[in-house]
Amino acid sequence: MEQDVTLSLRDAEALSLRILDNAGFNEAHAGAIMRSVVAAQRDECHSHGLYRLVSCVETARKGGVDTQAEPEIIDQAPGIVRIDANRGNSLLSFERGKTHLKEKAERNGIAALAINNCFHFSALWPEVEALAEMGLAGLAMNPTHAFVAPTGGNRPLLGTNPIAFAWPRPSGAPYTFDFATSVVARGEIELHKRAGDSIPEGWALDDRGNATTDPQAALDGAMLPFGGHKGSALSTMIELLAGPLIGDVLSHETQPANDDGTGKPYHGEIILALSPATFLGERADAHLAHAEVLFERIIDQGARLPSQRRFEARERSHANGVTIPAALYEELQKLT
Amino acid sequence: MEQDVTLSLRDAEALSLRILDNAGFNEAHAGAIMRSVVAAQRDECHSHGLYRLVSCVETARKGGVDTQAEPEIIDQAPGIVRIDANRGNSLLSFERGKTHLKEKAERNGIAALAINNCFHFSALWPEVEALAEMGLAGLAMNPTHAFVAPTGGNRPLLGTNPIAFAWPRPSGAPYTFDFATSVVARGEIELHKRAGDSIPEGWALDDRGNATTDPQAALDGAMLPFGGHKGSALSTMIELLAGPLIGDVLSHETQPANDDGTGKPYHGEIILALSPATFLGERADAHLAHAEVLFERIIDQGARLPSQRRFEARERSHANGVTIPAALYEELQKLT
Repeated sequence: MEQDVTLSLRDAEALSLRILDNAGFNEAHAGAIMRSVVAAQRDECHSHGLYRLVSCVETARKGGVDTQAEPEIIDQAPGIVRIDANRGNSLLSFERGKTHLKEKAERNGIAALAINNCFHFSALWPEVEALAEMGLAGLAMNPTHAFVAPTGGNRPLLGTNPIAFAWPRPSGAPYTFDFATSVVARGEIELHKRAGDSIPEGWALDDRGNATTDPQAALDGAMLPFGGHKGSALSTMIELLAGPLIGDVLSHETQPANDDGTGKPYHGEIILALSPATFLGERADAHLAHAEVLFERIIDQGARLPSQRRFEARERSHANGVTIPAALYEELQKLT
Repeated sequence: MEQDVTLSLRDAEALSLRILDNAGFNEAHAGAIMRSVVAAQRDECHSHGLYRLVSCVETARKGGVDTQAEPEIIDQAPGIVRIDANRGNSLLSFERGKTHLKEKAERNGIAALAINNCFHFSALWPEVEALAEMGLAGLAMNPTHAFVAPTGGNRPLLGTNPIAFAWPRPSGAPYTFDFATSVVARGEIELHKRAGDSIPEGWALDDRGNATTDPQAALDGAMLPFGGHKGSALSTMIELLAGPLIGDVLSHETQPANDDGTGKPYHGEIILALSPATFLGERADAHLAHAEVLFERIIDQGARLPSQRRFEARERSHANGVTIPAALYEELQKLT
């Protein structure tokens, strides 16, 4: 059985920074990426955790991300902050833009942050949670690679297009969800393949557009959106809002842009922020308290709030540190 | 076999206005309601079409909607128009607010229209389509009655909470969807009951929280959200954005408010508008044209765009008028 290595959060941060610095990321980018992967590891989202540093380093070495890129902040309109990531990682752009987004949301009630031309590998929940911590409701979306067929279609066109939302709560972690609009994450199909298992019906089509339960045929074919035509419509909306609306690409254009194998591509991301304080004025506290009734009633009937497992993992990690496989730890050590 | 009656759109409008006038709605409310039900009938959305006039009249007679209510427009913030419907129908509030919403969206890039304290019975697509006709992307949401259990739960809490989106296209009808976040509409379960059919698994729970295929048990129990925990999370987001964020009620509070049987309740609705022209400046036309590539590729692979059947029905109705059952026509005549 594989051994595990436990690291304190502080050690996980230091290890991440050494790796990113060694791969050539400047201090600002290294910090932003470190905060994202350590947050994911802390919440036991292993696929977005320290493991991702391996591909970050690989992409940097291949020249697929500009490790020195300076995000350019454009005051597009009273309600829009636009940031040209200049082929750098999206995370620094978000960090640089979030205060501007907050100011605009508080002034206007609602505002958008449009990040263009970014390398993107991270989960969206750290960003919407950051907005909720500033007292805002946040909604983030981005296109990805075109792995998903629209409902009724037979070949890949849409990305797995995640959507994430967070709502500020008077105490404790925000109400947060972050999900792909495909039935499952692509990694889930890869795991079934490795285990020699078939996949459930409804996850994917083969390369001729027929339903398949064979994971390899699914990987060669097309994944399906969650929730049939409703999920497909929602995924299409994400393509439009995080693509053409902000002057950026569609999911089916991201892979051809990576033909040189450097690990690109660059694409866009849109993040909306809504300010309860501006919508409600002095009534805000009362209505935020009132929203708690909904959460209480969800929990009271035995349902879970989304992200609940993540928040429980967060508590554990703050107490005990994070645990990764020894093989990954060794691989990471070699990158320092 | 039941006979049908065909009416020109102009006759359907005139009939609707006579009915609404006779029920006491003032000219402004009657016009707004007429435009919504005739648009739905024109698009062959029978459940939101002329049929709805029957319940409109009943609610008005019971005093459940203020037929003279004057919507009060509040300039809440640079990016927020708030309208107190004053217990009137939501439709007039939208009509009165949409130009303000457009102005704010064009100035700021993104804006919100929050309608409070409204009687609401209509589909959301006419509203987001109206925004798309003004060159804006629109996103509308509202709570409803609490008929839906959160995923993992066992009793009604969430509304069937619809979400509608429209995107402006350079020519032709906008890209539009409008769906309930329950697996199916409640009426679908009622139709199965009337036909003596069982319902598919996954639609609903009985009143003890167990899965059921019996339509009556489903109606007495809880409907389920579409797409499992993802749809449940999305529905919860709708509760928050169209409830506490705008200072209005949650779905589970709408039915108790109707204890007097008048056909209320009043609740809120939120409509977001995003302006491609403001996001993109002079690049807007190029990126709106680029979005068409996505629609072409959806259609090319044999999938349909959402609302396509509706737009086809619209063409037919403009050419041939609308057709309703003779029994409904007689019922409507009695209301004039």
